Amino acid sequence: MPTVPASGSGRPVAPTRGVLQPLDLRDVRIGPGFWGDRQRLNGTVVIDHCREWMERLGWIGNFRVAAGERRGREFTDADVYKLAEAMCWEAARIDRPGGSDLDAAADELSEVIAGAQEADGYLNTRFGHQGAEARYRDLEWGHELYCAGHLVQAGVARLRTHDDAGDHPLAVVATRVADHVVREFGDAGRPGVDGHPEIEMALVELYRASGADRYLEQARRFVERRGRPALDDIPFGRAYFQDDVPVRAASALRGHAVRALYLTAGAVDVAVETGDHELLEIIASQWRHTIATRTYLTGGMGSRHEGEAFGEDYELPPDRAYAETCAGVAAIMVAWRLLLATGEARYADLIERALYNVVATAVAADGQAFFYTNPLQVRVPPPVADPTAESPRAQAGLRAPWFTVSCCPPNVARLLASLSAYVATTARSALQLHQFVAGQVHAVLTDVGPVRLRVETDYPWSGSVTVQVQESPRAPWQLEVRVPTWAAGMRLALGDEVWPVAPAAGAGVTTRGYAVVDRAWSAGDELRMELPVRPRWTYPDPRLDAVRGCVAVERGPLVYCAESPATAPDDLTDDRLALVCVDDATAPDDSDTPVLGGAVAVDVLAHALEEPAGPPRRLPLIPYHLWGNRGPATMRVWLPMRPIRPIR
Amino acid sequence: MPTVPASGSGRPVAPTRGVLQPLDLRDVRIGPGFWGDRQRLNGTVVIDHCREWMERLGWIGNFRVAAGERRGREFTDADVYKLAEAMCWEAARIDRPGGSDLDAAADELSEVIAGAQEADGYLNTRFGHQGAEARYRDLEWGHELYCAGHLVQAGVARLRTHDDAGDHPLAVVATRVADHVVREFGDAGRPGVDGHPEIEMALVELYRASGADRYLEQARRFVERRGRPALDDIPFGRAYFQDDVPVRAASALRGHAVRALYLTAGAVDVAVETGDHELLEIIASQWRHTIATRTYLTGGMGSRHEGEAFGEDYELPPDRAYAETCAGVAAIMVAWRLLLATGEARYADLIERALYNVVATAVAADGQAFFYTNPLQVRVPPPVADPTAESPRAQAGLRAPWFTVSCCPPNVARLLASLSAYVATTARSALQLHQFVAGQVHAVLTDVGPVRLRVETDYPWSGSVTVQVQESPRAPWQLEVRVPTWAAGMRLALGDEVWPVAPAAGAGVTTRGYAVVDRAWSAGDELRMELPVRPRWTYPDPRLDAVRGCVAVERGPLVYCAESPATAPDDLTDDRLALVCVDDATAPDDSDTPVLGGAVAVDVLAHALEEPAGPPRRLPLIPYHLWGNRGPATMRVWLPMRPIRPIR
Repeated sequence: MPTVPASGSGRPVAPTRGVLQPLDLRDVRIGPGFWGDRQRLNGTVVIDHCREWMERLGWIGNFRVAAGERRGREFTDADVYKLAEAMCWEAARIDRPGGSDLDAAADELSEVIAGAQEADGYLNTRFGHQGAEARYRDLEWGHELYCAGHLVQAGVARLRTHDDAGDHPLAVVATRVADHVVREFGDAGRPGVDGHPEIEMALVELYRASGADRYLEQARRFVERRGRPALDDIPFGRAYFQDDVPVRAASALRGHAVRALYLTAGAVDVAVETGDHELLEIIASQWRHTIATRTYLTGGMGSRHEGEAFGEDYELPPDRAYAETCAGVAAIMVAWRLLLATGEARYADLIERALYNVVATAVAADGQAFFYTNPLQVRVPPPVADPTAESPRAQAGLRAPWFTVSCCPPNVARLLASLSAYVATTARSALQLHQFVAGQVHAVLTDVGPVRLRVETDYPWSGSVTVQVQESPRAPWQLEVRVPTWAAGMRLALGDEVWPVAPAAGAGVTTRGYAVVDRAWSAGDELRMELPVRPRWTYPDPRLDAVRGCVAVERGPLVYCAESPATAPDDLTDDRLALVCVDDATAPDDSDTPVLGGAVAVDVLAHALEEPAGPPRRLPLIPYHLWGNRGPATMRVWLPMRPIRPIR
Repeated sequence: MPTVPASGSGRPVAPTRGVLQPLDLRDVRIGPGFWGDRQRLNGTVVIDHCREWMERLGWIGNFRVAAGERRGREFTDADVYKLAEAMCWEAARIDRPGGSDLDAAADELSEVIAGAQEADGYLNTRFGHQGAEARYRDLEWGHELYCAGHLVQAGVARLRTHDDAGDHPLAVVATRVADHVVREFGDAGRPGVDGHPEIEMALVELYRASGADRYLEQARRFVERRGRPALDDIPFGRAYFQDDVPVRAASALRGHAVRALYLTAGAVDVAVETGDHELLEIIASQWRHTIATRTYLTGGMGSRHEGEAFGEDYELPPDRAYAETCAGVAAIMVAWRLLLATGEARYADLIERALYNVVATAVAADGQAFFYTNPLQVRVPPPVADPTAESPRAQAGLRAPWFTVSCCPPNVARLLASLSAYVATTARSALQLHQFVAGQVHAVLTDVGPVRLRVETDYPWSGSVTVQVQESPRAPWQLEVRVPTWAAGMRLALGDEVWPVAPAAGAGVTTRGYAVVDRAWSAGDELRMELPVRPRWTYPDPRLDAVRGCVAVERGPLVYCAESPATAPDDLTDDRLALVCVDDATAPDDSDTPVLGGAVAVDVLAHALEEPAGPPRRLPLIPYHLWGNRGPATMRVWLPMRPIRPIR
């Protein structure tokens, strides 16, 4: 039941089949609010910041062949491509101020990139040209196909956002790179895969944009070759790049988290486009396993600094959490694909969790500094880094303006620029609202006609969300609203009618996790939702060794944390070991005093370890995504309990 | 008050001043028992095993200059030198069968090593000769002075164990290397230090053995140069090799654990020999900080796989514990030096802890496989490795016969071969018994004359230790017995007199931690000790996040652990999350059934997570050092509690 045009216009991911169909990012307008503000910051600050650093460090200059010695790590081309992709989405975003300037900059960047392409389509500033190492000699670490994949994704973004279609240099160069890859790595060509997956999903998207089967076939080849094995062994072991067992034989995501997630995204794409239900179910099973045992409360993934890797099941240390920003972005990429394929709210739940607690965390309030890793506990306030220098990536105590390995900032930039595409979907006569974002949604429901909605909310600070129908066909259609798994007590209302809905396929909720309002809608109708965003205790799975005896506080989709310094002199800070009171009489509660530009703080009561007797004191918590914006600090999400709650 | 001959005969460490004086390893005979058996295994199996692997992999062949392409990592020379050192100590060990064969093998190895030395004394199979990279171009990672240091230590071992003194090629080549280093790195020479400390303590020991001041002066230079900084920055950051701040400015050990400990050992040596009390107190303070906040229950050090490094204070994850075997050996080296300098039992306590729970753990029951890392929890039984192949070092689920980086096996070998030197010391008219080891001790007390003791014990399985005086001067002298910090309830007896002693400067114990029996001894006198080795609960410091809500079991100096499979079908295993009952009514108790060749097992009562109700079941624990000898298994030292004990 393909309803998306072959080009997938305005869509970062445009499957030709699946339960849900994505919208063109230009059909969703995100208004002022949590994400609208961040989208604007991205368009006005983050993208320029990335471009300036890439120019300063010579990563863009590397494409100017006469520039002399190449600078930066072997994979910096990919960051330039992600910047180009972000610029494409951002230029197309509605309501964006100054879109034409961005297009001019993108044109210039595209010309620079195109200038480095070789006659046969190969393009890499690090390998293959005179004076450099030969092509494809080091598939394990060279990142050549990884870079090619990001270029293809940038080209696809151009194709899907601009009328110049295939004539723009970015689209031309990307298509030529893809054709080169297909020629080189086909059945009669080189047998390998890239040590860093990425090319797989890029080729599928180019197939979707162009209709040319060869790209899909090559993506399928790469997915199937992996793990038989296709690469040389390395000191980290082949699991590092998912070459230990075939994709179909694995039970969970493992090894380097971003590699694992990019491969998984590509595998979903291949499964969907080839109708491979077995592969899709295997991936879904791996995903469920990974979410249950290898994912942080924040949605972060990657438990180990060594190898930037997933750990074993239930190995989720808060202090040494790697939870790379790129892994958060990649987890959203995977979840979005699985959501479109299956229509299950569990994937939209993960997207929400990772957006609010990884992506939002990664970017400083001023848009000019970023977290690479996103730990859930920091014991020692870090020294303030030189704001004019690149930072080693794994120092996570303070956001840094740029990194020696700077994959994360442009990855966030391309996601934020295209974020409106992730808010809602359609399916025949239904519209699904996955994320509660203020703004407008326009969609054409294939079975009934065009729909236009206005969403008003101050979510996540408030749980009230109003969906006003502004345009509707006469025929009935279904408004399907995600009921988050944390939203016990959620209520819907339409006119005078109010009804409760319960998560996890409870009252009024489908097995896929949506509350369905099926009626003949008229312009002016308002569906009102009340999501219970009051603060709540979250207890860890008893098998999570690293946070045993602790409790966390969540509020709606937001994870909270204690951060030093406290907001009032008499407050407890996490520098002293706070023992949080978890009696029923001491539930966490909204604070009267907003923090950090209007965010809702939460108060809990706690004893200091040094003063276990006497009345408890206030321990203020702030949203995790805002931590680290007040200078060097200690921080913790999981708080020791007093009295300690039995494991069971 | 130097009492040790300049040569330090038979002593691995021979300070010319300090509170305690070490004994010649030939003056202490370790009889059959826990350590005697391991010494014999070392002499009959481990050393040969190491030599065979080094031959097979070409690490010894690298010294045969015509051998062709060099094999192994850049620091394999050091492992050959540690083997040579182990052979020297082992050949000198009394009661050793076949000492002359070992000497012949050591002679041959020494000739091979000597053959690779260059005319100016430089010796390294990886650098500096035709066709290889130039000398000293990469002090950060080249390990050239690290290798030189181990060669000097081997030469010193030869000097101190054989009458051939300075004529043997091993001693000659080592002295020439040291002279070369002094010439190259003196005040007028190269300004750097080595990325891996080791040369510092080696040079001090050669100073002690030779009396030549230039070696001490050079060691002092290396210690003082560090951290100003002396090396280029690296991705791990300069703390990795302790070049972030000067030795005197640091508050705790940090960075790569073995590097930090080797540097600390060298700094103690320099402080002692130069009379630098300030430096000695700084190091002692760093040590106390490190023991209190950065050391595992086992005595293991190194909380991070990444960088094989110490973590922050209270960062001690049991599952990702690195606790490298070499760090255990190195911690003993540091503690021994501080013990000799200060006479404080805290250092002998750490030696005991690391010996029984790191060194003993590292070696398989058959002496042919080794742990590189020593985690306190393993969640997934590892696959059985190919016994004929080198293993990646950090895979810690099973002991491996050899490693690509194989520093640990020969490090254990040299320690076990010289272990008798670490049992006792003297000071004027006192003899200190630091370790409770069956055997005989002979010492000359400078103020009164020769003493001969016989120690009988089945320690650590039994807490009964009998010290029989076999020879004594007429004048009174003091037998000083360490009272371990865990030994609350310890008793001493002499004839009919029995008296309690209490750890930590309690009843009958000096501030330095020893029970002193000061009397005129006669041959036949027996001091009887009863150490309370019944199993005991150990609760973690509440600031240790990673093991909150857990309890461990210790018995005497031994840490215990749960290991799957259990010993009886109805027992709990750690595969199911066991919730240990810590009521007073359910103290851990010795099991009736010994395990693994006669070791005392311990039973605790626990509930399985899946069955929290109903009567508890037996959870058998085994000594941690024996885990992994029954095939692939899961293991944990810290056990979740039920009911959970409040933090405070």
